[in-house]
Amino acid sequence: MPAPTPTSPSTTPAPAAAPIVATDDQLAQVRYDADGLVPAIVQDAATGDVLMMAYMTAETLRLTLTEGRTVFWSRSRQEVWRKGDTSGEVQHVRSAHYDCDGDTLLFVVDQQGGGACHTGNRTCFFRAFGPEGGAAAGAPARGA
Amino acid sequence: MPAPTPTSPSTTPAPAAAPIVATDDQLAQVRYDADGLVPAIVQDAATGDVLMMAYMTAETLRLTLTEGRTVFWSRSRQEVWRKGDTSGEVQHVRSAHYDCDGDTLLFVVDQQGGGACHTGNRTCFFRAFGPEGGAAAGAPARGA
Repeated sequence: MPAPTPTSPSTTPAPAAAPIVATDDQLAQVRYDADGLVPAIVQDAATGDVLMMAYMTAETLRLTLTEGRTVFWSRSRQEVWRKGDTSGEVQHVRSAHYDCDGDTLLFVVDQQGGGACHTGNRTCFFRAFGPEGGAAAGAPARGA
Repeated sequence: MPAPTPTSPSTTPAPAAAPIVATDDQLAQVRYDADGLVPAIVQDAATGDVLMMAYMTAETLRLTLTEGRTVFWSRSRQEVWRKGDTSGEVQHVRSAHYDCDGDTLLFVVDQQGGGACHTGNRTCFFRAFGPEGGAAAGAPARGA
């Protein structure tokens, strides 16, 4: 039951992708490390939870923007990693941001499926330092 | 006009630090890169906004937990960076998390002062890819 909120009553299973047309100036602001990677934080549009962090190359950033879903570079497998292709946990990009010095990205997404984490948790940050351990799992940003 | 929301009518300028007592097992889960660094995401407890990302060493993680405020390693200056010591923009740690494979940290903080970014913006992610550019500044997580 992926149940994305469809913007059009399409009969195709994939929800509508919303490409983001970045300018050359914007893309030129991004700074990659010696391995050609930039860290990309993923945040849940619905809850504000930080879901995960992974890495992108210039090519997977371009794919992410044009396909409207997160595409990373898997450092362990050394290959393009289209998030959700095997798990169904696709992340549809609502907005894409770069930070003040261009060395970190932030994607606000609609998370499909059970969550972002391969452990089955909604967020990868389900464990907390301190006596409570994982007590704050899934909702680190709330309770202000 | 920094106007932090004070939790006690103290006359001392520094709000109470709340140390986090991590277990050895928890600290042993953290994986550092070849330079001895781990990326640390900082999220605003009040708004859920992702404010910034910086790097910690094992030593500055220990300082962050024991002092209850974020302490980073400045890669450009190659020194310990006690966030807010010069700017006043101290980040008091509400909760501290580590991700599923231990290679990224997340700190939920009470942000003091005008914001986290040296540009004067509340968040470092004040610019967005796409035709609107910085339109989503400061509130990437809202509007679900």
